[in-house]
Amino acid sequence: MKQIEKIAVLGGGTWGATLAVVLAKNGHDVMIWEYNPDVARFLQEKRSLATLPQLVLPASIRITDTMADALAGRSIILSVTPSQTVRATFEKAATTNKLEPGAMVISASKGIEHETCLTMDRVIKSVYAQVGPVVVLSGPSHAEEVAVGKPAGLLAASEIIAAAVKTQSLFSCDTLRVYTGDDPLGAELGGALKNVYALACGVVDALDYGDNTKAALISRGLMEMTRLGKKLGAKAVTFFGLSGLGDMIVTCGSKHSRNRLLGEKIGHGKTLEQALTEMTQVAEGVATTRSALQLASREQVPMPIVEEMAHVLFNNKNPRQSIHDLMSRQTGPEMEGITI
Amino acid sequence: MKQIEKIAVLGGGTWGATLAVVLAKNGHDVMIWEYNPDVARFLQEKRSLATLPQLVLPASIRITDTMADALAGRSIILSVTPSQTVRATFEKAATTNKLEPGAMVISASKGIEHETCLTMDRVIKSVYAQVGPVVVLSGPSHAEEVAVGKPAGLLAASEIIAAAVKTQSLFSCDTLRVYTGDDPLGAELGGALKNVYALACGVVDALDYGDNTKAALISRGLMEMTRLGKKLGAKAVTFFGLSGLGDMIVTCGSKHSRNRLLGEKIGHGKTLEQALTEMTQVAEGVATTRSALQLASREQVPMPIVEEMAHVLFNNKNPRQSIHDLMSRQTGPEMEGITI
Repeated sequence: MKQIEKIAVLGGGTWGATLAVVLAKNGHDVMIWEYNPDVARFLQEKRSLATLPQLVLPASIRITDTMADALAGRSIILSVTPSQTVRATFEKAATTNKLEPGAMVISASKGIEHETCLTMDRVIKSVYAQVGPVVVLSGPSHAEEVAVGKPAGLLAASEIIAAAVKTQSLFSCDTLRVYTGDDPLGAELGGALKNVYALACGVVDALDYGDNTKAALISRGLMEMTRLGKKLGAKAVTFFGLSGLGDMIVTCGSKHSRNRLLGEKIGHGKTLEQALTEMTQVAEGVATTRSALQLASREQVPMPIVEEMAHVLFNNKNPRQSIHDLMSRQTGPEMEGITI
Repeated sequence: MKQIEKIAVLGGGTWGATLAVVLAKNGHDVMIWEYNPDVARFLQEKRSLATLPQLVLPASIRITDTMADALAGRSIILSVTPSQTVRATFEKAATTNKLEPGAMVISASKGIEHETCLTMDRVIKSVYAQVGPVVVLSGPSHAEEVAVGKPAGLLAASEIIAAAVKTQSLFSCDTLRVYTGDDPLGAELGGALKNVYALACGVVDALDYGDNTKAALISRGLMEMTRLGKKLGAKAVTFFGLSGLGDMIVTCGSKHSRNRLLGEKIGHGKTLEQALTEMTQVAEGVATTRSALQLASREQVPMPIVEEMAHVLFNNKNPRQSIHDLMSRQTGPEMEGITI
């Protein structure tokens, strides 16, 4: 018989609430902590989200905006707040004295922290000294589709394989297939960096460059992302799985992708400032472009697409000129620097 | 200064004619051999193709339906007829006594030969005993887009690296970036097998399963394709480049893909026979599904998506049941069998 787990979900946004519903439907005892009291109240009363009306929260899920209530007696924590608030969230959690020593944390926020350039699992470890196993949950997963039961595949990656397998059993259901992996850093980097290429694909869409161009951009983007990942200690192969190319495909092609949409606005000639004012939700790719540029320079890894995207975003470079410059670089072996 | 090469292009279809134009614009002396005299005449007179009116052949390209004329004095041959006619084409070429010993052959047809399960490079080598270096040219390249100068990236793969580099210089131009590789078998298999997953993506589109499902299907499809490729002697990494995932993305997502369209018709409930009668051009994926199934069984490599696609195509299995069966298989490590 399946064990019922007590799980705290930190973050009641679209992905957090969607994953909470999966866990509750699998029979677990779930409590959501949501920072914004208005959103928490909406979730409590309407059992849904304004930004995701198709999602229905079962009655068993409890919601709170009080961190101590969410954490008390819970040995599994799902971290799913916006990436730039993960540190503050765990700092707040630490002050409650309710963080259990050795609790397992599943990290489902995608991003790289500004300034420090740390991935989310490392941010969590740096704040929560007594954390147990940390698992990264990633992959191609627009909440809009998971919420209505469309089939999806995810990766649960941890250095502690038993924790990855545990996570797999927590989330697996009829419509969600969860695979295990042992490279959390690779999973984190893929989930974060793909947003840079989603911006670039939006630009290419706006300029009407076609499917070949996008496929080449994605393939080459994956190569430079893999080169950086290897240099940072991740495994090349992780970038070729669900959390790498899988997430890349969905983000670069989907109508749901905010980063692709932002890129499209820029491709149509808007400045970054103009484009950003038209967005209603955060597009992580802009900040990630800065972090990727910083990491590429620190690690001395050539990332021509990231560099051109930064020129377009921050220096108002004409995107057609960027494409031209990318096309006229010297071409060499496809797999340069990718040893397998 | 660039050397002008004398090149025979065997096959005046959309891709053959498009590549011939690239070569001619790069200054080479190009002669197209086209099997169908009507198509050859149309090409000669209209300098274009009925199926690709946006393409314009420069006056320098000569066209013939006489094989001996096409081959005489040409030390580079671009093979680009439909895959199931490559053997017959080279058998015909051999009878002319005009095949130069040691000529370089660039193979740009994608497919696996029925019955023998041989890739195109091997078919060519088995017929043309005195062939020189063989290069596989592959990647995400809908002719419709290359013909109008939209940027694209290709892979030139050969066991003879100098031949891959030579091919790179023949085709490289403002809008075409050509990378080199040393794994022609991997390039051939990726280009052929992707059509099976394009069929599956068409089915998923028809059933309105969404972007997550397609991304998972592509990611997992790439894994099983890679497992088969490794068993056959190809390199895993090749499947993660332009000729593997790049071509997969374009074929699975594009409006131009005939295989995706055929899958869509089947997803809407048509039998294979009904769907095929509605197609105006060959969809290679049906034959490739049979070959892949044969190879998977011979090599004892599990290929669950290929197997389900075969059930849907040949045994009228309900596609929703197939998706359900794929989702409820036991899940394990993501990279099982992929050593890197």
